[in-house]
Amino acid sequence: MPRYVPEDLSPAEIDEHRATFGPFADAVRDLVDATIRTTVDLDEVRAAQAEIEAITARLRRRQLDGPFGVRMSEAGRGRAWGNSVIGLRNPLAPPLVVVEDPSGRAVSDFHLGAAYEGPPGLVHGGVSALILDQLLGQAAGAGGRPGMTGTLRLRYRQATPLGDLRGEAWIERSESIKTWARGHLIGPEGVTVEAEGLFILPAWARPGAS
Amino acid sequence: MPRYVPEDLSPAEIDEHRATFGPFADAVRDLVDATIRTTVDLDEVRAAQAEIEAITARLRRRQLDGPFGVRMSEAGRGRAWGNSVIGLRNPLAPPLVVVEDPSGRAVSDFHLGAAYEGPPGLVHGGVSALILDQLLGQAAGAGGRPGMTGTLRLRYRQATPLGDLRGEAWIERSESIKTWARGHLIGPEGVTVEAEGLFILPAWARPGAS
Repeated sequence: MPRYVPEDLSPAEIDEHRATFGPFADAVRDLVDATIRTTVDLDEVRAAQAEIEAITARLRRRQLDGPFGVRMSEAGRGRAWGNSVIGLRNPLAPPLVVVEDPSGRAVSDFHLGAAYEGPPGLVHGGVSALILDQLLGQAAGAGGRPGMTGTLRLRYRQATPLGDLRGEAWIERSESIKTWARGHLIGPEGVTVEAEGLFILPAWARPGAS
Repeated sequence: MPRYVPEDLSPAEIDEHRATFGPFADAVRDLVDATIRTTVDLDEVRAAQAEIEAITARLRRRQLDGPFGVRMSEAGRGRAWGNSVIGLRNPLAPPLVVVEDPSGRAVSDFHLGAAYEGPPGLVHGGVSALILDQLLGQAAGAGGRPGMTGTLRLRYRQATPLGDLRGEAWIERSESIKTWARGHLIGPEGVTVEAEGLFILPAWARPGAS
């Protein structure tokens, strides 16, 4: 069963963690991009590897046993800093900064570089699915209808180029524990991928669940 | 239009690049995991950031202008080392090692750690979609029916826990430029996510296209 960990940091400490780990994860994101694109001599690459391994060993001297999970603040909001799409501390996440609206909308402007490539120069079709799953789920949550993905359908209308993109999602309708959401990605030439998803409130989160 | 770059390395050089960049990207993957899980003092994190920025600057002294793309070897096989799922040089990719069968099957055993988290302790629903898109597309390609994703449908049957997983995909049927593929992810308790996709041979890759 998912673990939502009660917050162990004060608001001031959370701010300091954000100010430290945000730029740190950005530096690792930049290293990820350079790992893919560098053309320096292989000896230089090997030297860099040894240095990176030493840094990682230092960071691992004290660490969580498992993944980051979601930390709950006193205000009842989750801090999903390990999330693959929006996680401040997850270098795999672009990360998306999502603007939510309580009417059940979620919108984000973001940039995808070399690490998100599938076909040459294009966003991996699965990366589009990854981002849309997050946005549709967040639209549902923003509208007070949180849930886990039940089904997700994607229609690829045109190729999505790497670069600056926009994603939009909204609640279509809801019924009991089920919420249907829709959304799309927009590139320089308009909508590239359309998505439709069903989100279901998990049993452990329903009223009366222990 | 996608660029498939002709190979500029000899087979021996490709081997050396593989032997260098494989372990290098693994070291960056390990750093990504530590970035999410470390609990060392914030001063240590800031010190590590400065070192990482220096390494990245060295790697960027010489680099590709854009993403990695797909390099074609003399044998006509693509080297998709930048790919978000299977890319040897892409620290975002687990990376999946996919066993392909010319009957149109693609299978992979892989491990997903903290960086692939959505709900606490669970694989992000969008990450499952990302991996299945890649496997279904590779099954189509393995069967001689390569294509770009046209539609993708996912059904989430149970939560997918982080850890050791298996993915399987196969061609269901094909017709002219269209190929339908299916697949699923398997966790410790059986199938977690089912997928069905339509893959379409792009116009620029059809016989007679210039």
